Amino acid sequence: MSKVIKGGTVCTADRTWKADVLIEGEVIKQIGEDLKGDEYIDAEGAYVIPGGIDPHTHLEMPFMGTTAAETFESGTWAAAAGGTTMLVDFCLPGEDGSIKNAINEWHRKSAPQICADIGYHMAITGWNETIFAEMEDAVKMGVNSFKHFMAYKGALMVEDDEMFASFQRCKELGALPMVHAENGDVVDLLQKEMLAKGITGPEAHAYSRPPEVEGEAANRAIMIADAVGTPLYIVHVSCEQAHEAIRRARQKGMRIYGEPLIQFLTLDESEYFKGDWMHSARRVMSPPFRGKEHQASLWAGLQSGSLQVVATDHAAFTSEQKLMGKDNFCLIPNGSNGLEERLAVLWTEGVETGRLTPNEFVAATSTNVAKILNIYPKKGAIVEGADADIVVWDPKISKTISAANHHSVLDYNVFEGFNVTAQARYTLSRGDVIWAWGQNSQPQPGRGRFVPRPPFASATKALSKWKELNSPRQIARDPMNIPAGI
Amino acid sequence: MSKVIKGGTVCTADRTWKADVLIEGEVIKQIGEDLKGDEYIDAEGAYVIPGGIDPHTHLEMPFMGTTAAETFESGTWAAAAGGTTMLVDFCLPGEDGSIKNAINEWHRKSAPQICADIGYHMAITGWNETIFAEMEDAVKMGVNSFKHFMAYKGALMVEDDEMFASFQRCKELGALPMVHAENGDVVDLLQKEMLAKGITGPEAHAYSRPPEVEGEAANRAIMIADAVGTPLYIVHVSCEQAHEAIRRARQKGMRIYGEPLIQFLTLDESEYFKGDWMHSARRVMSPPFRGKEHQASLWAGLQSGSLQVVATDHAAFTSEQKLMGKDNFCLIPNGSNGLEERLAVLWTEGVETGRLTPNEFVAATSTNVAKILNIYPKKGAIVEGADADIVVWDPKISKTISAANHHSVLDYNVFEGFNVTAQARYTLSRGDVIWAWGQNSQPQPGRGRFVPRPPFASATKALSKWKELNSPRQIARDPMNIPAGI
Amino acid sequence: MSKVIKGGTVCTADRTWKADVLIEGEVIKQIGEDLKGDEYIDAEGAYVIPGGIDPHTHLEMPFMGTTAAETFESGTWAAAAGGTTMLVDFCLPGEDGSIKNAINEWHRKSAPQICADIGYHMAITGWNETIFAEMEDAVKMGVNSFKHFMAYKGALMVEDDEMFASFQRCKELGALPMVHAENGDVVDLLQKEMLAKGITGPEAHAYSRPPEVEGEAANRAIMIADAVGTPLYIVHVSCEQAHEAIRRARQKGMRIYGEPLIQFLTLDESEYFKGDWMHSARRVMSPPFRGKEHQASLWAGLQSGSLQVVATDHAAFTSEQKLMGKDNFCLIPNGSNGLEERLAVLWTEGVETGRLTPNEFVAATSTNVAKILNIYPKKGAIVEGADADIVVWDPKISKTISAANHHSVLDYNVFEGFNVTAQARYTLSRGDVIWAWGQNSQPQPGRGRFVPRPPFASATKALSKWKELNSPRQIARDPMNIPAGI
Amino acid sequence: MSKVIKGGTVCTADRTWKADVLIEGEVIKQIGEDLKGDEYIDAEGAYVIPGGIDPHTHLEMPFMGTTAAETFESGTWAAAAGGTTMLVDFCLPGEDGSIKNAINEWHRKSAPQICADIGYHMAITGWNETIFAEMEDAVKMGVNSFKHFMAYKGALMVEDDEMFASFQRCKELGALPMVHAENGDVVDLLQKEMLAKGITGPEAHAYSRPPEVEGEAANRAIMIADAVGTPLYIVHVSCEQAHEAIRRARQKGMRIYGEPLIQFLTLDESEYFKGDWMHSARRVMSPPFRGKEHQASLWAGLQSGSLQVVATDHAAFTSEQKLMGKDNFCLIPNGSNGLEERLAVLWTEGVETGRLTPNEFVAATSTNVAKILNIYPKKGAIVEGADADIVVWDPKISKTISAANHHSVLDYNVFEGFNVTAQARYTLSRGDVIWAWGQNSQPQPGRGRFVPRPPFASATKALSKWKELNSPRQIARDPMNIPAGI
Ligand SMILES: [Zn+2]
Ligand SMILES: [Zn+2]
Ligand SMILES: [Zn+2]
Ligand SMILES: [Zn+2]
Ligand SMILES: [Zn+2]
Ligand SMILES: [Zn+2]
Ligand SMILES: [Zn+2]
Ligand SMILES: [Zn+2]
Repeated sequence: MSKVIKGGTVCTADRTWKADVLIEGEVIKQIGEDLKGDEYIDAEGAYVIPGGIDPHTHLEMPFMGTTAAETFESGTWAAAAGGTTMLVDFCLPGEDGSIKNAINEWHRKSAPQICADIGYHMAITGWNETIFAEMEDAVKMGVNSFKHFMAYKGALMVEDDEMFASFQRCKELGALPMVHAENGDVVDLLQKEMLAKGITGPEAHAYSRPPEVEGEAANRAIMIADAVGTPLYIVHVSCEQAHEAIRRARQKGMRIYGEPLIQFLTLDESEYFKGDWMHSARRVMSPPFRGKEHQASLWAGLQSGSLQVVATDHAAFTSEQKLMGKDNFCLIPNGSNGLEERLAVLWTEGVETGRLTPNEFVAATSTNVAKILNIYPKKGAIVEGADADIVVWDPKISKTISAANHHSVLDYNVFEGFNVTAQARYTLSRGDVIWAWGQNSQPQPGRGRFVPRPPFASATKALSKWKELNSPRQIARDPMNIPAGI
Repeated sequence: MSKVIKGGTVCTADRTWKADVLIEGEVIKQIGEDLKGDEYIDAEGAYVIPGGIDPHTHLEMPFMGTTAAETFESGTWAAAAGGTTMLVDFCLPGEDGSIKNAINEWHRKSAPQICADIGYHMAITGWNETIFAEMEDAVKMGVNSFKHFMAYKGALMVEDDEMFASFQRCKELGALPMVHAENGDVVDLLQKEMLAKGITGPEAHAYSRPPEVEGEAANRAIMIADAVGTPLYIVHVSCEQAHEAIRRARQKGMRIYGEPLIQFLTLDESEYFKGDWMHSARRVMSPPFRGKEHQASLWAGLQSGSLQVVATDHAAFTSEQKLMGKDNFCLIPNGSNGLEERLAVLWTEGVETGRLTPNEFVAATSTNVAKILNIYPKKGAIVEGADADIVVWDPKISKTISAANHHSVLDYNVFEGFNVTAQARYTLSRGDVIWAWGQNSQPQPGRGRFVPRPPFASATKALSKWKELNSPRQIARDPMNIPAGI
Repeated sequence: MSKVIKGGTVCTADRTWKADVLIEGEVIKQIGEDLKGDEYIDAEGAYVIPGGIDPHTHLEMPFMGTTAAETFESGTWAAAAGGTTMLVDFCLPGEDGSIKNAINEWHRKSAPQICADIGYHMAITGWNETIFAEMEDAVKMGVNSFKHFMAYKGALMVEDDEMFASFQRCKELGALPMVHAENGDVVDLLQKEMLAKGITGPEAHAYSRPPEVEGEAANRAIMIADAVGTPLYIVHVSCEQAHEAIRRARQKGMRIYGEPLIQFLTLDESEYFKGDWMHSARRVMSPPFRGKEHQASLWAGLQSGSLQVVATDHAAFTSEQKLMGKDNFCLIPNGSNGLEERLAVLWTEGVETGRLTPNEFVAATSTNVAKILNIYPKKGAIVEGADADIVVWDPKISKTISAANHHSVLDYNVFEGFNVTAQARYTLSRGDVIWAWGQNSQPQPGRGRFVPRPPFASATKALSKWKELNSPRQIARDPMNIPAGI
Repeated sequence: MSKVIKGGTVCTADRTWKADVLIEGEVIKQIGEDLKGDEYIDAEGAYVIPGGIDPHTHLEMPFMGTTAAETFESGTWAAAAGGTTMLVDFCLPGEDGSIKNAINEWHRKSAPQICADIGYHMAITGWNETIFAEMEDAVKMGVNSFKHFMAYKGALMVEDDEMFASFQRCKELGALPMVHAENGDVVDLLQKEMLAKGITGPEAHAYSRPPEVEGEAANRAIMIADAVGTPLYIVHVSCEQAHEAIRRARQKGMRIYGEPLIQFLTLDESEYFKGDWMHSARRVMSPPFRGKEHQASLWAGLQSGSLQVVATDHAAFTSEQKLMGKDNFCLIPNGSNGLEERLAVLWTEGVETGRLTPNEFVAATSTNVAKILNIYPKKGAIVEGADADIVVWDPKISKTISAANHHSVLDYNVFEGFNVTAQARYTLSRGDVIWAWGQNSQPQPGRGRFVPRPPFASATKALSKWKELNSPRQIARDPMNIPAGI
């Protein structure tokens, strides 16, 4: 059974043109004019774009003594409603520390629930021979990226020598190291300072994680990646300081990727200074929202290419969960929502303002993710042979974002009240329409699949070649010129 | 009659994969496995890439009292031999100052000679109502970019107010302004200083055009483009100073493009300090070659995306022509060669060293040019429907560059002695094989065509939207608060 | 008759210590403990600092069809009341264009009026042999600095080649070139654009002189100074863009000085967006006040040394004069006040906040000016032998700035309502107490003197040596290697 | 008994003028013309400058299994011969970890030996309550600066949380934290990598400590200092990367000081790539010498003020000691010489080339050190009341530096063969002539004194004020808006 997406304007990362898209089974068969098929999907007046890929989510994540409320089902469902057809979730090792077991556990949790496709990044939260060995297993299991937390001291945090070792292992395996960049030692001490001063509310969350602390960690991780000779991906870039470190590295030719969040592009730290504790607590995430001047930096990064992708770090904790930190901001579960809102907010604040071209919007929400994560053009593309993960993106549907109508399990929404001017008219996952605007679509848990990602992306290979050619060489010394010793 | 490029690895700006390419007539019909056609072109062991596009040439250009020796025939032929299937030449107004007449004159010269496709940039060398009006004619004639010389005082140079006016006109027309960035006043005075000191040889060419002088002009043009609200393309970026100005602008979200030359990436200023006058004179071009530290900056620009395309500024003057400046470096015709060498040198120094991925190589030599000049994906792409401007790029053919075997009319080659490790096995222009390595191919003058380019590229539109939304707004003042006057 | 400043804390650019200061005649005779003299000046509880030097004023300046209302008498008197004992005024050539005549005319106007000492900077507003010759006369007459306007097109503005020539002449004479950095061409066109859009109020003044336009000009002047090989002083630095250009130059070792104004450090562009036309018009000056983010940049410049001095550009036009631009912002006479307020506002906003040390305050208001202008330690110092230009600075006198109690002739004050926390208890000019707080002091016109300034400051000499050692050298070519010609 | 330094040109950090200097006892009594005294010291044709202060030495330091060969006697004697009248040595805790005991031990070693004055910086090599408490003792004992090693893992290195705690303690005490900035974890791993590759010679020392590793640590220490709210002094800045971090911080208004070494300004990494093992081993120090491009950065830092002082890190190990690392570069004792050469080399390469003015030379070698270390103007100044630590600096004495004629105990000299063009004609320490050129001066061990340094320098106080005013404030929340809990 074939389908034709009819009458739309195909918009990819590199061009925009009128064309129909013919789908056979799960893949795109043809792109062209006047295509025929068994069924038709109306794209008149709309853009036909690659389904969004969110490179950064935490569904059902056990964290800070609780578990993120968004399930694999509700999360992938909210994603679909928002035009996102794939997400990459962070897999954390369990008590046994095993990477393989953790991936299998993630499969166990996600497989029956997911409505659309997923992948995993694997967290490296320590260093030993088992981890070294199991990283290869992870790559074989289709996980080609490894996340390192430079914050969360006493919990997930790794030290510089551990990062170095793990990055080196990534390089050997052709995998991509990632970092959560905040100096965990300093955050820890600033948190204690806040508590000692009696500042226990959510504003202290912002005070204890200033932008310099993020910039420092980004800079440090970049140096380690460069010393090792591997590309590096920095998650949730929130501020000019981290962005500056990335730019500075890139202008030396280093292969560094930066991921701002849709929250950071549009929300600011004043959210933490509201009189309503719960309003502020709901916005507590790490790094925190920043001053407005940082937003300009992040937008410019997307425009100039120094930042490549827009993610959400979707880690949804309910108001009740947030209450855990009522007396101590350090205990507020860190995380906020965005999976459903990412595309619409970026379109409204990015494309409709002229900051981004529609093609750049596609690149940031989908194509660049796929390229960096080395699944392009299976995902992130509208080309023949690609998975038919496609969104009919309607720039005429306006909506006010609200917890009242969103698809997350959350009882609030950090974008509450935002007016967005575009929505997914249809969302297709591997050829299936999984979301149709205004047509009472229902989640189809279990139809989503895990997407294995191969190692050795092109930038990784190129950088390894360069480093090999420029590696230290021994100086040839005449034995006569080497002293005989004491 | 259909052709299939068989057995190769298609390499585009965004991916690399094994596929055949089926050509029907002038365009690509299909890309896929096991394609059939009337004829086969062997791509086994080779890459199949979009034909190179050189965005910057001066064929038969009247300049400095002589005319560039490279003809449209020899130039496009050398290009084809080097894997370049399109070039964009700079059209200069004649004595009557008319833009329309100049374009027609360029057509008259080029049409019977060109072996592959061409486009034009139009030079704006002054400002008046006729120029204002004829810019619209130029756009209608398919010329969507206008070049401004900030140097060559007394000849081509324009002043800041003229640039501002012309940039504003470009914005209205959706055309792209370009600049040759050197401060003409300062170059002029430094030239006089050199002559006054008795330094009359080619080394004085370098001394009189230091990097700061280029950086300043780039910075100035960027400010004017920003004040107007238009993207800007800076040709022949040779140094860190100009690159820094571009980076600084881009990191504010400005839409600035920078074009290093293959010469600047691989040759340095020591060429001007040789004892052999003619060796140095042959390398005289503006801006001049720079110190080696600038090369690192330019390469990193290609890696990070702050510089987008690699050009040649091919303006070929024979040794005899160079002699015009025997007693005065100011009279040495400015220009050097590269049309044939660009791809092979960039591959060897870029891809083989690991600085660039093969995809980035394609982007810099072809795709990004086509996008910026708004003819993508007709040119610069391997997608169905695109012009079959394709190169079978063989990474196993080694060659030593030499005037003895090049296809330019020049009696020398600035890359003489360079060993390159890849060559075009076949070059196809709109489906015709116009070059086949080792098969005694001959030029086919007149088969090339002029490629009109439409205005209003996506970045131009987005920027206009942004500037409109952020334009100055009048302050509403109560008449009571406006004084009645003296 | 000797005087002792008794019981104070001497605070200079390099240290702070308890000491008395003995004055004999016009100069400082001794600094130490328990000094004796014929008279005593009470400095108990106060700092004893070098008198302020304002490097940038326009008293009785003929400009924009009128004449600045502040006279040499009222200006130097207001200065004295504010703790400033010397100012350097800009001398403009008259209709005959003669530099010598202009200096003599300035002497004629100032001599009978001035209450404290003055110097002049000479404006270079064109270029010809007379100017070239008379610059030497100016230096002999004690004027060692020459100002160049890059804005005010059609009036004071000079072109790049003129700047180059004048800077070169400065270098020969050991004089210091200065620039008003704004791109006059672009300002002119943006002004016309505003008028064409019907935006005629003071807000258009800000819109037509955006920070990028200032940054560009600063950058250009720096390049020209570097090409010539001379230090450069950039007046009224208002924004990050100009500051960035200065920093970038300095970090290459260039000798560039930047002068923020006290207005720019503390007032912002919102002043132009008020509903009250006259309020905004009174703040019209060039460059205009900027967004608050620029203030942080300027303060950091003072802290780090990338900006050296704080001036006022005091050019006072009455409300009635401001009315000239009622229907057209371009006709509002440009200028604002600050001569009296500079020290108190900088102390309050700088020292009391911890941004600056008291020593840095002295450096920025006095010592650095004297060093750069090459009159240190005659002025700007508390050392034996120096002119006794001394202020007893009382950090306990609070005051609200107001036109109601200031000493300027202006009918308003741009700092109206500012609470300052320090004032001059006594101001001494060459040993005379010319101002005593709360003691009904009266101006003593005619007692001030012109202070000639010698050329060849130490940085100028050092830079000339460096440039000479690194100047272009001719390549020695064997005649055999130089072709015989065509 | 009084002395007059007669006929010289006094040159200080802020001016240059002809004057005699009258000394009574240990201090300067008067500066002026035609002074009389009991004795005369001929300064005709010479500059009279404040004695050099070297802020960074390691005399008799126990390190890497041996002890630096330069003794307090030979070190201070070599210093005196080179025009340096004070040095600040690094005091390391002994086995008991006690700060007080270490200072007393340093006194015990130094007191009988020193020919000129000294001070100490105290090293913080761990963190506990005793250290916390004894830091106050150190300050009371006159040690107001504390050094932290970010390298030498397993030995001296401290972690980020320890640095944070110690910096905070410094802030409370008004002391100045200092860092040796190299990422110890990464150095350690790169060293192992080199050894694993079989690269065991001194070239591996450079390879294992690349500039990025230093820049990273500098950046990290700066962030921690900023989070704490204290100034920071970064010792032995060798490269653009560390300098960039310092500049970036300073341009945000942070109070960061950077100390290049005379070695880094004039020697480069090619020293490690010589065929002669011992030549290279003698130059092994950390950080290592860098590529020549870094020298330009450091010089520009001195010119622009982003770097303030020039030191030596004098840590002298004999050739025999260097042999400890014959088979393993990690075992080569780290250190090189410069105490005697610092002034002459800086004058020759700095002042004689025009890079620095004579005043800037004085600032970098003496005055800025004294200011930053808070002993100005007792040291580092030529003013009445200051210690008579004075050098008669003769710019006409040329000399070739050589181990054959130097005053160090070393059997080699890293500046061997350098031609310098100035020397100390006389060196006075608190009024005593301790060195006279060509007059067979002899060391006078025991006459030197320890110089206690008070805490709370002006920049420290100002910064504390700023941070206090801008410290986090609790948000006032209506109890109604704070939830009651789970
Ligand atoms: Zn995170
Ligand atoms: Zn996360
Ligand atoms: Zn050009
Ligand atoms: Zn050209
Ligand atoms: Zn001005
Ligand atoms: Zn002015
Ligand atoms: Zn060290
Ligand atoms: Zn040391």
